[in-house]
Amino acid sequence: MPAISHKGAKMPSSPVRKLVPFAEAAKKRGIHIYPLNIGQPDIKTPNQAIQAVKDTDMEILAYSHSAGNESYRTKLVAHYNKIEMGLTIDDVIVSTGGSEALLFTMGSICDYGDEVIIPEPFYANYNGFATASGVTVKPISTKIENNFALPSISDFEKLITDNTKAILICNPGNPTGYLYTQDEMNQLAALVKKHDLFLVADEVYREFAYDGREHLSVMNIPGLEQHAIMIDSVSKRYSMCGARIGCMVSKNKEVMATAMKFAQARLSPPTFAQIAAEAALDTPQAYFNEVIGEYIERRDILIAGLKNIPGVEVANPGGAFYCVAQLPVEDTDAFAQWMLESFQLDNETIMVAPAAGFYSTPGVGKNQIRIAYVLEKESLIKAVQILAEALKVYNA
Amino acid sequence: MPAISHKGAKMPSSPVRKLVPFAEAAKKRGIHIYPLNIGQPDIKTPNQAIQAVKDTDMEILAYSHSAGNESYRTKLVAHYNKIEMGLTIDDVIVSTGGSEALLFTMGSICDYGDEVIIPEPFYANYNGFATASGVTVKPISTKIENNFALPSISDFEKLITDNTKAILICNPGNPTGYLYTQDEMNQLAALVKKHDLFLVADEVYREFAYDGREHLSVMNIPGLEQHAIMIDSVSKRYSMCGARIGCMVSKNKEVMATAMKFAQARLSPPTFAQIAAEAALDTPQAYFNEVIGEYIERRDILIAGLKNIPGVEVANPGGAFYCVAQLPVEDTDAFAQWMLESFQLDNETIMVAPAAGFYSTPGVGKNQIRIAYVLEKESLIKAVQILAEALKVYNA
Repeated sequence: MPAISHKGAKMPSSPVRKLVPFAEAAKKRGIHIYPLNIGQPDIKTPNQAIQAVKDTDMEILAYSHSAGNESYRTKLVAHYNKIEMGLTIDDVIVSTGGSEALLFTMGSICDYGDEVIIPEPFYANYNGFATASGVTVKPISTKIENNFALPSISDFEKLITDNTKAILICNPGNPTGYLYTQDEMNQLAALVKKHDLFLVADEVYREFAYDGREHLSVMNIPGLEQHAIMIDSVSKRYSMCGARIGCMVSKNKEVMATAMKFAQARLSPPTFAQIAAEAALDTPQAYFNEVIGEYIERRDILIAGLKNIPGVEVANPGGAFYCVAQLPVEDTDAFAQWMLESFQLDNETIMVAPAAGFYSTPGVGKNQIRIAYVLEKESLIKAVQILAEALKVYNA
Repeated sequence: MPAISHKGAKMPSSPVRKLVPFAEAAKKRGIHIYPLNIGQPDIKTPNQAIQAVKDTDMEILAYSHSAGNESYRTKLVAHYNKIEMGLTIDDVIVSTGGSEALLFTMGSICDYGDEVIIPEPFYANYNGFATASGVTVKPISTKIENNFALPSISDFEKLITDNTKAILICNPGNPTGYLYTQDEMNQLAALVKKHDLFLVADEVYREFAYDGREHLSVMNIPGLEQHAIMIDSVSKRYSMCGARIGCMVSKNKEVMATAMKFAQARLSPPTFAQIAAEAALDTPQAYFNEVIGEYIERRDILIAGLKNIPGVEVANPGGAFYCVAQLPVEDTDAFAQWMLESFQLDNETIMVAPAAGFYSTPGVGKNQIRIAYVLEKESLIKAVQILAEALKVYNA
């Protein structure tokens, strides 16, 4: 049998999916499971997005432009320019989800063995894209006790080597929900300029900023034009994760010309979904106000509930729809699996994402979990009750 | 300005797209262009595929399973098993086009610096996927004078090193149209077994086998279960290139488990397009009979026309919808550009793909072009006339 080389072998498994087989077994035993493990919102997709696809009169489902339909890019750029990003359509490549935008970015700015610094905990699939691209992730530690705020710039500088090509942030953060302040963004901007690095900002949760605070895009920092790369996606904004439409945005011409070669190699992003994404841009602000209001209520209920559980610590997320909680257990991998295999409260249990998979440093985050508040409030209240009871039984 | 590393910089440009700016300029001058450069068929997508999407009652455009919807995989496996591939749904990962299936395959079986042997000329984007994956392409030469048939096995063996992981073929071939014989497939099978390599077969044109010959899939070779990986796509089969739905198929459990990690990292293939692809599987045989009949007529007209042009040599394609022609010019890059910039016949001209980009060996194929016969017969007749006249003027 031919041997698999170690690159594929060292590709990390998804931390949010590894418990799925146990959940499926529990379902077969008649247990109802609250899925808090993945960021699949229960919010309805704006109707006009789906309707636009249903209204199509196409007869040939053809390739689009490799950078995405010009009509979509034009409208998308107008959307971004409402907050004064000053973009042209050549600054945008439409990608198959934010995932592909990350792959294009790593492929375009890094060679094998190059390094990208990422505050941890971070979106676990950054590890996968880095492995696929031959890039080494250098994690920099952030702490639950200060809500996973930006580490000090001197800590970043300790990690910078000749091979460092970029700093990658997720803002607001998955899994932390942390929303970077203007001051933190300015510090990062000064840092990447000083060391001639790229600042890659995954802003797929950009609309989900709470408590009256505003999200500051990496594209809105003056003087950062040659350094800034924005990753975006329609997945969360319009609750259309299955579209697989994202984009890579930069004013750096050399970066975009290089990324276009990756885009052309895979021909084009999906055609149906671009139609939906273009129509989704007309979604009225009222939709977001309602959705954001809903997420804030959910967050408040969830965080308050978690803080009431003895021994649980939780950060205060300022955006996105995740939180990281620290539990009074040694190993949340084992605990989360136990909740699916051996625990139920009134025939119900919960599936969460053990947080160790969101850390790149071995052994860190083993007593933490990520909870996605993508379920309605009543479900979140029940989920917190289940977690409280499960911890009681588990630790007894 | 931050420096781009040489991996992105060495990413090849697409040979079929580099003339597009010249074509656009020609269009602005009022010239009509016959696009023979890309494999975007003019054939209508089966109506039920598009209708299935229009009929959807989904309210949330959600992620699918990372390996693709189970309903689609089930039906797809039944489709393959009609020709006795003996597959289960675990042998299939639905990908975003054949492109992503190739990336998953290279990522799963190769490490940086590993080698894959590919008969050249080959689909140019193999170079791109190899570069993105850190894989070195080792080209093995095939010749227009014998229709680009399989090189001798001893020639393959000269290229095999400790780093060789796979042989990659495209069957029937893009750009050559060559359809491998049973004997050639058996020779390849014996070779990969002897040297413990993978045999990766890109079979996206599998339905397009002409002259009463049958396509032999790599999945139908007994004893090759641990070595065979099939790449497939709905793009050409149902003329739905814009769906971006393909798949990677193998009975090798280790390969598929590794590929699943790549699949999970990017979350899922596009949801709308999977609905279309599933419905497309019900396309009646009559559709294919008609389409294949059409392609055979086009091929016959094109090949006969090309052979009539003084100094032009052309291979006889047995499948797909491409042919490679050798022209009496030194550099088809310059000639193809000249046809767009400086030539017209009755206000019309043609866009072809210079073939050097389909070769990995420098300097080879410079006097060849690829023509995709994706236009109706009348257009192909006109295109051949234009080519004949252009050669006359160019060489005068």
